[in-house]
Amino acid sequence: MTTSVRGDQLARLLGRWHSLPGRHRSPDYAALGAAVRGLLADGRLALGVRLPAERELAEALGVSRTTVSAAYRALRESGHLNSRRGAGSWTTLPNGHRVATSGLWTPDDDLDMIDLGCAASAAPVELVPAARAAADELPRYLGSAGYHPAGLTELRAAVAEAYTTRGVPTSAEQILITSGTQQALDLVLRLTVPVGAPVLVETPTYPNALAALAARRARISTHGLDTATGWDAELLLGALRQTRPRLAYVITEFQNPTGHLMPAELRERMVATAHATGTELVVDESFVDLSLDNPEMPPPVAVFDRHSRVLSIGGMSKAYWGGLRIGWVRASAPLVQRLAAIRVGVDMASPVLEQLVAVQLLQAASSIVSARRAQLQFRRDALVTALREQLPEWRFFIPGGGVTLWAELDGPISSALSRAAEDVGVRLAPGPRFGLDGTLERFLRLPFTLPADDLVEAVRRIASVRHDLDRAPRPAWRTPAVIA
Amino acid sequence: MTTSVRGDQLARLLGRWHSLPGRHRSPDYAALGAAVRGLLADGRLALGVRLPAERELAEALGVSRTTVSAAYRALRESGHLNSRRGAGSWTTLPNGHRVATSGLWTPDDDLDMIDLGCAASAAPVELVPAARAAADELPRYLGSAGYHPAGLTELRAAVAEAYTTRGVPTSAEQILITSGTQQALDLVLRLTVPVGAPVLVETPTYPNALAALAARRARISTHGLDTATGWDAELLLGALRQTRPRLAYVITEFQNPTGHLMPAELRERMVATAHATGTELVVDESFVDLSLDNPEMPPPVAVFDRHSRVLSIGGMSKAYWGGLRIGWVRASAPLVQRLAAIRVGVDMASPVLEQLVAVQLLQAASSIVSARRAQLQFRRDALVTALREQLPEWRFFIPGGGVTLWAELDGPISSALSRAAEDVGVRLAPGPRFGLDGTLERFLRLPFTLPADDLVEAVRRIASVRHDLDRAPRPAWRTPAVIA
Repeated sequence: MTTSVRGDQLARLLGRWHSLPGRHRSPDYAALGAAVRGLLADGRLALGVRLPAERELAEALGVSRTTVSAAYRALRESGHLNSRRGAGSWTTLPNGHRVATSGLWTPDDDLDMIDLGCAASAAPVELVPAARAAADELPRYLGSAGYHPAGLTELRAAVAEAYTTRGVPTSAEQILITSGTQQALDLVLRLTVPVGAPVLVETPTYPNALAALAARRARISTHGLDTATGWDAELLLGALRQTRPRLAYVITEFQNPTGHLMPAELRERMVATAHATGTELVVDESFVDLSLDNPEMPPPVAVFDRHSRVLSIGGMSKAYWGGLRIGWVRASAPLVQRLAAIRVGVDMASPVLEQLVAVQLLQAASSIVSARRAQLQFRRDALVTALREQLPEWRFFIPGGGVTLWAELDGPISSALSRAAEDVGVRLAPGPRFGLDGTLERFLRLPFTLPADDLVEAVRRIASVRHDLDRAPRPAWRTPAVIA
Repeated sequence: MTTSVRGDQLARLLGRWHSLPGRHRSPDYAALGAAVRGLLADGRLALGVRLPAERELAEALGVSRTTVSAAYRALRESGHLNSRRGAGSWTTLPNGHRVATSGLWTPDDDLDMIDLGCAASAAPVELVPAARAAADELPRYLGSAGYHPAGLTELRAAVAEAYTTRGVPTSAEQILITSGTQQALDLVLRLTVPVGAPVLVETPTYPNALAALAARRARISTHGLDTATGWDAELLLGALRQTRPRLAYVITEFQNPTGHLMPAELRERMVATAHATGTELVVDESFVDLSLDNPEMPPPVAVFDRHSRVLSIGGMSKAYWGGLRIGWVRASAPLVQRLAAIRVGVDMASPVLEQLVAVQLLQAASSIVSARRAQLQFRRDALVTALREQLPEWRFFIPGGGVTLWAELDGPISSALSRAAEDVGVRLAPGPRFGLDGTLERFLRLPFTLPADDLVEAVRRIASVRHDLDRAPRPAWRTPAVIA
């Protein structure tokens, strides 16, 4: 049950661990331990991974074995490492910590921490009345076994109606209800992506989509989004034609993390190209309700689909609440049946009560969503203002919707900055989390889902440690120094 | 996205399609079509499977191509087959049908159908007040993002306490909350079973466990349970030693479908052997609360576990309600963390409201569970009495708990009987669904989760078609007759 990481791999992950802020005040072993904790914190080092032997890591880092020994000992004492004699050392987490969103972990009771790692909002006030109304509706379902693998008909119909309103006629049979958008993606991958099949994703993209693709052991290619301008049509269509992927995953509305909105013309060309290359096009519409500036939206990608190439996925996490685990797939009716059959072997069905809550909330969609938009607009503007004041060197595109801003930093410092920010009570998801190859160190995703005051305070703290990063000495990469 | 079935494979699945009840009144093509519909109904023929070409199937069955053509045409007309010129024919389902439990499908509005395919009860009356109380508790969680991949601490603590009460001290950190027992199994398989790894299961066993293992493409071995006496200790331990499986899946309490309870001594030996063979032991405790005759239960398997070999899974579907999607894994705390990290890429977390409902129900566990036991005891006894009166040739062990009875029939007629029963409004899951190799035609699982009147009526209807099966002529296997 164990994967392991080699000395040279861990050295690459650790990168410039010497240049941690405050580094000049702490001994080598403490800096090394802190850097490993940082990798665990941002999820680039997974739980349960076997670390290299002390000697191997010492050689790879060019430090003494004593330093590595002391770092490992400190990690054991802080609860981040488990060792068994003769068998090695595994990454773990201290008691009282929990695994949180995006594989990140957070101290349970750390109320002073401002969490910008997670792009999710608090629940709308309508949730409690919706839950009460759903409890009242429950008796209609209690006489049966309670398993509805494709979802309750009334919820499927409500979701279908929303698609029809957006301009793509949809019947309830074309909707599969899932446990959030994440499960929608997971089920679609199970159906369409055999082990080792080629898939195409954007870079940067949503980390948990990368996690789901990695779990299928897909062969992943990427096409890059420009930070300022979004998709390059020729690049995207060319990548489709060249790699002929089994599946392509795109976030067309207020892309996570960049915030770009795909224009109608590219939607149409993308569908045509996907048909030509035999590619299933998975369109993540998580943010489609969250246009903040312009109510005019391009048509859904599925409008251009004449060959059942498009599987649209979406859910209620972003406009409503993440703790409500309701998502969906929109596809052809036969495909929905097959997804439902797969789902029986995965987790049977979504909870009945939860689906009834979703029906209630969708009935109040227009007021809930417009309140959410106003809230996000205010918060986005506060974040933009704070960034311009506190970190004027950073550049960014102001997203017209969604919940995230993708900042280009003034250096390849995203991971170092994230580690430093943790010390001043701000949790960040550094740029490399949004790509595959550890690049994106010049970028940082900043969600604007927290209250404006928190965002302003977070930017102030980030700016303060950004300043410290520069003042801390940055030793060059060490030459090997065997002390034994 | 397509799997296909060869002519000889489909012929084997179809078996004695000539001997369907009422067969003497219908032409060959209609009998063949009905047999294919039967395979779709009991899930042995999946949705979206490409059927063999007409000529190939005609040869494999030894009938004319005209017969197969007419059968395929009838299946297209009834909505069970989709054909595209030059590409073949795929199984599908007519509009207005839905995929239901265990991959079976049911007409949406067929209220007269008695469903014995699904071993699940209606909800307890306590569910609606629990849902209302949970709605009142919800505000405590609404201020945050709502993602708790390992589960709400209060629910994890409640589940841990139940384990501790059963005699195996357990902390909240050792519990992962899942979307039902099915997801508990799926997550454990994702963590522990690489593609192609050897696993060991009981035969007969729970069909959806087989589905989850098939999805992992595990190499499955089986060890047989005796219908009358349950596990053969030497057989089980010998199978472990010989196949040295990566994982073994056992249902130790009121095994599904046989109803047997594993004795304490075998539990202890099984854990020791699993440790010796390097096997992760997945113990499905879905029915542990449902002892009907004897309140004395053997200790949980985890009691004997000194090397973190045992992963216990369970849930609230059977003693509470299937529409409440709450299950769990009990394992070591580090393993729970790793499962939670995997879960983020699968479906993030369980819904908050659903977990709060579970907390409420577990607080009322003793009264809910004892009412459920009394109900199941009454229903089991009614089923036993009806079977002895109406089908005295059938033999069975009277289960001391759980929700299912495993009947040995008076011939290898389980699939034929299930098809015939469908015509008189009884849905059955035939014996072969509970194994891998299409054997078990002499067995039928009969759940006692429906009201006693329904059970008695179902047995009456089954007995009537059993009688018809005998009266219908059973033509011998046809010799090839090419008509062209």
